[in-house]
Amino acid sequence: MPIKNGKQYTDRIDQAKMEIWLSGEKVKGPLSAHPAFRGLISTQASLYDMQGSEAFKDAMTYASPATGDPVGLSFLRPVEKGDLERRRAMMTLWSGRHHGFLGRAPDYMNTTIMAFGAAAGLLEEHNPQYADNLRRYYEYCRDQDITLSHAFIVPHAGRLSTFMKTLEQPETARVIEKNKDGLVVSGAFLLATQGATAEEILIFPAPLPSFADVNPHAFAFAVPSDLPGIRFIARESFVAGDSPFDYPLSSRFEEMDMLVVFDRVLVPHDRVFLYGDENMAVSFIEQSRFHTHATHQVLCRNVAKTEFLLGTIEAIIQMLGLRTYPHVVEKAAEVIAALETLKALLTSSELQAKNDRWGTMLPAPGPLYTANFLYPKLYPRLIEIVQLLGASGLVMIPGERDFLSPVEADLNAHLKGIDTDARSKIGLFRLAWELSASSFAGRQTLYERFFFGDGGKVASRLYDNYGDKEKCRERVNNFVSGPGRDA
Amino acid sequence: MPIKNGKQYTDRIDQAKMEIWLSGEKVKGPLSAHPAFRGLISTQASLYDMQGSEAFKDAMTYASPATGDPVGLSFLRPVEKGDLERRRAMMTLWSGRHHGFLGRAPDYMNTTIMAFGAAAGLLEEHNPQYADNLRRYYEYCRDQDITLSHAFIVPHAGRLSTFMKTLEQPETARVIEKNKDGLVVSGAFLLATQGATAEEILIFPAPLPSFADVNPHAFAFAVPSDLPGIRFIARESFVAGDSPFDYPLSSRFEEMDMLVVFDRVLVPHDRVFLYGDENMAVSFIEQSRFHTHATHQVLCRNVAKTEFLLGTIEAIIQMLGLRTYPHVVEKAAEVIAALETLKALLTSSELQAKNDRWGTMLPAPGPLYTANFLYPKLYPRLIEIVQLLGASGLVMIPGERDFLSPVEADLNAHLKGIDTDARSKIGLFRLAWELSASSFAGRQTLYERFFFGDGGKVASRLYDNYGDKEKCRERVNNFVSGPGRDA
Amino acid sequence: MPIKNGKQYTDRIDQAKMEIWLSGEKVKGPLSAHPAFRGLISTQASLYDMQGSEAFKDAMTYASPATGDPVGLSFLRPVEKGDLERRRAMMTLWSGRHHGFLGRAPDYMNTTIMAFGAAAGLLEEHNPQYADNLRRYYEYCRDQDITLSHAFIVPHAGRLSTFMKTLEQPETARVIEKNKDGLVVSGAFLLATQGATAEEILIFPAPLPSFADVNPHAFAFAVPSDLPGIRFIARESFVAGDSPFDYPLSSRFEEMDMLVVFDRVLVPHDRVFLYGDENMAVSFIEQSRFHTHATHQVLCRNVAKTEFLLGTIEAIIQMLGLRTYPHVVEKAAEVIAALETLKALLTSSELQAKNDRWGTMLPAPGPLYTANFLYPKLYPRLIEIVQLLGASGLVMIPGERDFLSPVEADLNAHLKGIDTDARSKIGLFRLAWELSASSFAGRQTLYERFFFGDGGKVASRLYDNYGDKEKCRERVNNFVSGPGRDA
Amino acid sequence: MPIKNGKQYTDRIDQAKMEIWLSGEKVKGPLSAHPAFRGLISTQASLYDMQGSEAFKDAMTYASPATGDPVGLSFLRPVEKGDLERRRAMMTLWSGRHHGFLGRAPDYMNTTIMAFGAAAGLLEEHNPQYADNLRRYYEYCRDQDITLSHAFIVPHAGRLSTFMKTLEQPETARVIEKNKDGLVVSGAFLLATQGATAEEILIFPAPLPSFADVNPHAFAFAVPSDLPGIRFIARESFVAGDSPFDYPLSSRFEEMDMLVVFDRVLVPHDRVFLYGDENMAVSFIEQSRFHTHATHQVLCRNVAKTEFLLGTIEAIIQMLGLRTYPHVVEKAAEVIAALETLKALLTSSELQAKNDRWGTMLPAPGPLYTANFLYPKLYPRLIEIVQLLGASGLVMIPGERDFLSPVEADLNAHLKGIDTDARSKIGLFRLAWELSASSFAGRQTLYERFFFGDGGKVASRLYDNYGDKEKCRERVNNFVSGPGRDA
Repeated sequence: MPIKNGKQYTDRIDQAKMEIWLSGEKVKGPLSAHPAFRGLISTQASLYDMQGSEAFKDAMTYASPATGDPVGLSFLRPVEKGDLERRRAMMTLWSGRHHGFLGRAPDYMNTTIMAFGAAAGLLEEHNPQYADNLRRYYEYCRDQDITLSHAFIVPHAGRLSTFMKTLEQPETARVIEKNKDGLVVSGAFLLATQGATAEEILIFPAPLPSFADVNPHAFAFAVPSDLPGIRFIARESFVAGDSPFDYPLSSRFEEMDMLVVFDRVLVPHDRVFLYGDENMAVSFIEQSRFHTHATHQVLCRNVAKTEFLLGTIEAIIQMLGLRTYPHVVEKAAEVIAALETLKALLTSSELQAKNDRWGTMLPAPGPLYTANFLYPKLYPRLIEIVQLLGASGLVMIPGERDFLSPVEADLNAHLKGIDTDARSKIGLFRLAWELSASSFAGRQTLYERFFFGDGGKVASRLYDNYGDKEKCRERVNNFVSGPGRDA
Repeated sequence: MPIKNGKQYTDRIDQAKMEIWLSGEKVKGPLSAHPAFRGLISTQASLYDMQGSEAFKDAMTYASPATGDPVGLSFLRPVEKGDLERRRAMMTLWSGRHHGFLGRAPDYMNTTIMAFGAAAGLLEEHNPQYADNLRRYYEYCRDQDITLSHAFIVPHAGRLSTFMKTLEQPETARVIEKNKDGLVVSGAFLLATQGATAEEILIFPAPLPSFADVNPHAFAFAVPSDLPGIRFIARESFVAGDSPFDYPLSSRFEEMDMLVVFDRVLVPHDRVFLYGDENMAVSFIEQSRFHTHATHQVLCRNVAKTEFLLGTIEAIIQMLGLRTYPHVVEKAAEVIAALETLKALLTSSELQAKNDRWGTMLPAPGPLYTANFLYPKLYPRLIEIVQLLGASGLVMIPGERDFLSPVEADLNAHLKGIDTDARSKIGLFRLAWELSASSFAGRQTLYERFFFGDGGKVASRLYDNYGDKEKCRERVNNFVSGPGRDA
Repeated sequence: MPIKNGKQYTDRIDQAKMEIWLSGEKVKGPLSAHPAFRGLISTQASLYDMQGSEAFKDAMTYASPATGDPVGLSFLRPVEKGDLERRRAMMTLWSGRHHGFLGRAPDYMNTTIMAFGAAAGLLEEHNPQYADNLRRYYEYCRDQDITLSHAFIVPHAGRLSTFMKTLEQPETARVIEKNKDGLVVSGAFLLATQGATAEEILIFPAPLPSFADVNPHAFAFAVPSDLPGIRFIARESFVAGDSPFDYPLSSRFEEMDMLVVFDRVLVPHDRVFLYGDENMAVSFIEQSRFHTHATHQVLCRNVAKTEFLLGTIEAIIQMLGLRTYPHVVEKAAEVIAALETLKALLTSSELQAKNDRWGTMLPAPGPLYTANFLYPKLYPRLIEIVQLLGASGLVMIPGERDFLSPVEADLNAHLKGIDTDARSKIGLFRLAWELSASSFAGRQTLYERFFFGDGGKVASRLYDNYGDKEKCRERVNNFVSGPGRDA
Repeated sequence: MPIKNGKQYTDRIDQAKMEIWLSGEKVKGPLSAHPAFRGLISTQASLYDMQGSEAFKDAMTYASPATGDPVGLSFLRPVEKGDLERRRAMMTLWSGRHHGFLGRAPDYMNTTIMAFGAAAGLLEEHNPQYADNLRRYYEYCRDQDITLSHAFIVPHAGRLSTFMKTLEQPETARVIEKNKDGLVVSGAFLLATQGATAEEILIFPAPLPSFADVNPHAFAFAVPSDLPGIRFIARESFVAGDSPFDYPLSSRFEEMDMLVVFDRVLVPHDRVFLYGDENMAVSFIEQSRFHTHATHQVLCRNVAKTEFLLGTIEAIIQMLGLRTYPHVVEKAAEVIAALETLKALLTSSELQAKNDRWGTMLPAPGPLYTANFLYPKLYPRLIEIVQLLGASGLVMIPGERDFLSPVEADLNAHLKGIDTDARSKIGLFRLAWELSASSFAGRQTLYERFFFGDGGKVASRLYDNYGDKEKCRERVNNFVSGPGRDA
């Protein structure tokens, strides 16, 4: 089966029997009709429709090496630089549709499973069967166009320093039993973004330590999201309403985050990728260069989002006639500089890409980890700029129903813009408000701040992987200790 | 009639016949039962109840010079430094109740009308009758414990540079007619925070220029909020729900902001304070030292809010065991430093207070305008710190109904804290979320950013009013041009 | 003997036989004639002259409890709030003379030895003789008007993590021997600012750990700076020249920093304050509230320095006519806000002062540690503002000799200001350059950044000593767990 | 004549008869022996030597289209993308020699005159002779390997707002007379960096307005620096000494800045490029894309400088063993991120380069103006990081002579590093001090802050030239006004 379209995606989600809890109630009926999910599902469906459309299918698909069918290009394992460019073109098309607001658009997990699959060889010494499972799972996802979610974090009461206490607690996620049918797993995992709107879920926690020979906390696997014993517990929904005028973003792009509880779930043996070896778990994440491949996708998304922010800011500047204020130009220039920086880092990572030992073309990590380091600081600042330019315009936000009521005339008279009617002006400001000051905005900011871990982790990843710092140090050491007049 | 209590406040609001539009519908029934207003009204009622309680009445009231009845202490015109301290003590009590989230708690407008009333003499040369009107209106508010709102801004399509276009437009606010009963006013005003939950409204726009001898855009007056022709158009409500567990802030402290439309409203002559003279309008705001007196109140509120932020941050640190992280201590120290700075500026303004020409004790503007300058930068940073420490705990926020449902056991097992059960932990994190990442949070941040105008205006107010800069310059000039070895 | 005057100070320094090394040479001849020290000594002499002058002696001295002679007011042990105000007035007078550039003006060490002396009781259980030594040393300094320097840091190769290696090394500072005459000490100490321009030196290092019963690294004492075996090794001098026009700051205020080497120095028993007990060493620094008393002095200095910065910035604004630029006003407002913040923290610390268990009036640490936390960030920013406003005017800096040469006419024609001749303009810009971009400036910035330790240490000091954070946390906890509608 | 070597460069400078004033005295004797210039001249000579060396000549030269001789590659007019890469490779080699400290290394002006020459066609309508002069001057510089300086700024008493006053003043730079031999020019120009160490000077001020038909303030020309009537007035020299151990930077890289006075200087007609037309003067700067071509060079230099900073910081981290401190890693990561950003912007500008109407390959301005916008903020922050990591190590800086004196043993014992002797450690810290806290450092920071104008000008250049902001705005406008469910 080749790429799916929007309807097929929607049908598969609606037909799955996932157990989802929201606001204390079990979700019933087709998910695509549920107020908390329908906007998101519709947006995702439109992404899948793009793949098969005449306009985009060449740019967005390639022939499966297994079946010859067209499959999604974000599954493509890059082996030459041109592949990275094709992947970028495809991911940019999707990002242009959701403007970067979907952190879990399908290409993110497609890329993830491609990266893992491409590095499956690392698992050979651990367990050749697991290596094979992983390769076949990648092919399955690719050829069936599976929509995946993932959860990589085990909830715990404190930070690292209190980890040891965590271990002793019965609820900590672990393999309870290994039997002839598979591994039996219990525990909970965070944060399954889009857990309910994906068909399968990949579980790969950073492993806790253990004194046992076979560490029950070290495992990786993927299963259908509706296996018996899996429960999704949703956070509060930030869909503020269905009206695209009132809620242009949350009505379309609210990805739900979830706690996934595994209650004695049987994971079949052929879906296990790793078990019992915490060192392997740590080193597989590191050596598969998951962060590198994933960031190549993430950066496409960040570029699209930053373009959307720039567009919003520029629209406000035009609407309010702010070009003459130097501090406004300074702020707009900041946004442009952020955008150009991200774009330059993206192409720089491709230009310096190199084949890894499996022949996979790996984008250069330096520019990508730099983007990881910068974006959590840039994004909140750009949002702050929207607030500073939008100002009180972000507070006085009547909605669609107001324009359909007797006060319409008042709004038209008093809230219009320069050469713009009140409805258009308020439409722009409602967007700016949802973007910068709503609950949807708050969650997006938190999401970007912590996308790949807290600031310290991201800084260490950049620093520790940056080989050129040694060269620079050598140069300075030579300069200091070198002969007098020679620089 | 002396101070009112909570019930009296609620009754007066419920009995007023204000025309309020929300989401395209006219609000009906008692306002205190309306989901968008009941939490706020209940909080305000609790403030009024404090005034009359045994515990607080001495600290919160004084005898009216006119009636001898106890009246609210925030109406007190200070004439000695002790009065400023008493005022601060009273305002601190109210702020401690609403934790600084009410920007329009009654003491704000009480202080405003006191400041205007105390400086009514400035209007003598303009119009002795208006001066008298203003004095009597202050006494009326004080002795009847009137709850006031205000609106000082005229909406316009562009920024200053396009003002001239604005003037030509028919909808721009103006006095249409002066007749035997009063002035007839049409136009709209922004942002009437708490417009619907106050009895009267003070209108005093920054005047637009005019070529007419009597500038129709220059006026100031106060009227009951339910006069015929007054329409309040509310923005979207940010009350997310009634549950204090789920929405500890918005269920109590959501002040509504409104556009107030005047549609040929008759303002009685005895309620007019200023008309026709734009220079007087500008200079009255300046010379009445409105900003100085008001900031004394605002700073009490900012201190309470910052204490609440520090408490939240400290609770998170304890809950998650973060004391060992140097970057956490650095951030908490930032919050402490902000709090100590604000408190020090507040007492410094009192220590250096001086009587003005009317005998009113004026707190020193230097420290107060400094607080005005700093808080719009400090507050967003403090909120950012809540986000940075709360991290993913701010995202995984199930609610009260989840704890009353079958998933309670999962939540208890997987979301507990160090020495804390899941419900308490989630309760704290829901607070931190509403405080830092919700729509309520977004509006609070915008409110603090622009409380007394945009950054440039606030900076100019501080700079232009700061006499000591000349002394410092003299000292440096002497140093530069002075004799050789003498510093 | 009462307070000394400038000549007495200079004579004492000139007559001491200190061993000072500068640029590889032993300093010879009177120090007050040496280019690296004469400006500083002259400035310090002017401070001592102030004490005895008619204009200032009442404000700057008090009667010694021992002799009745007038002694320096910065030696006064405060026992009531008025004493703190008197101390502040005195320290402000001295700071106003050196504009805050002398980090080791005499009042700093006078305050230090007062704080230590006042808390000598802490040493009773350690060694009553040492407690007595300390008290008598304080009286000696006060009644003889001794100029002190100090060194609190032991140089080591790495940071804390490599301390243990340090211990094994023979050169690490320690008591080598205790004999009938005293302790024999060897080792080196950092950074003895003004080491060569003071009569005595107080040595009190943060103690290294030891396995010995009597820790040889834990000690505190004070000795004359010219004892046999003491060597001062100076860093490069930043006096750029003698001309007050060309180098208005470094010609007057360059305090020298030094490494002090002790080479088997005999410290007499009556000058020992602590020996052998590392816990006592740590807790004495803490419990004597040295940081609190010292910061009261430091803050007087920081206020004077910030006033000088504001004056310089305001002079530039006037000279170049920059008032019309909003970004300039914003920057100047930042400087004003810094100044007002520091002043408010200073008076706040006095207002909330309390007597400690010895009856000494202790300024409140909260506002003072806040100032410690803020100033290392504020100062570099203020210096940056000088750079941003001075711009290329800080680069084109001809000097006094240029104005005495044939190119004077060119300078007069092309470098004049608005209503100012070239010489005055260049004079101001040379000051701004020395203040913001010279080697003198660099050292001042480093000095303020690290005055009381690195950022982490200063943040911890503020955080750990701040009791009110618990109150704030309680308030929030009550708010979260309290009944529904009650805030 | 082909490229020159170091000796030829030195000889030409020594033989010129420039009138240079420094500290009130006319400079005499060969410049290459003068303490203020010899280090710089030696460094520049080493650059010229590189061009002809076997190792570099292929990468650094190309055949002159006129003579076939090898000429400097930074003179190459790029016509294809490969040319930009060759230019970058060449400029990177030179930058690697001076580590980015020479803002006026020869390639800067070589690039400038190339950019102007390539756009000479713009002058055809103004004056075909001038267009021809400019083209021939470019060829002359290229084929004779002329070392150029420039001055673009007319000193004036105030900022823009007081320009009009400036015009009336007799000393304002202007063409006094046009006669048969050329234009006679009087006035002064800022800041001729390296004015005294270049053979010729290009004068092209931003023109002041005039009511005259032929604006006497609008002109551009280049002349030998030793024409009669030209006087260079130097600022104070920041060469702190000749020792490369003590002053590793200023002993090699101190570029002098100068005021150039023209006192009735006769500019021959064939050296005039523009005269009398202020609009042409403004538009030539703009349309020649001078800023774009120049920034391509500047960015090569900024990359080298940032590498040097990273190397210094990494050397400090190693020397002090700071890797374990998270805040240190965070700061080092900031430096890496800055470096990767600059490198990415540089290659991005080449990737998106396009031919202009003259066929010249123009690097994309977006990434380059972004670098212009970022570097003035990045550089001071990187310098601050050096200060924060170097800390007190930057203060305790004995020098070479100390190591040759009796105190050597003390230094060796007490100032050594982890696995490093004291001399090596101090060597590194003296570098870090000169880099971050010396007068040399101060001038470098000022230089980078204002390289291409103040912040507002640089922001406007980025904003106004950035076409993509319109596209982004369109996208958002479509999103806001588009149909409901379509993103």
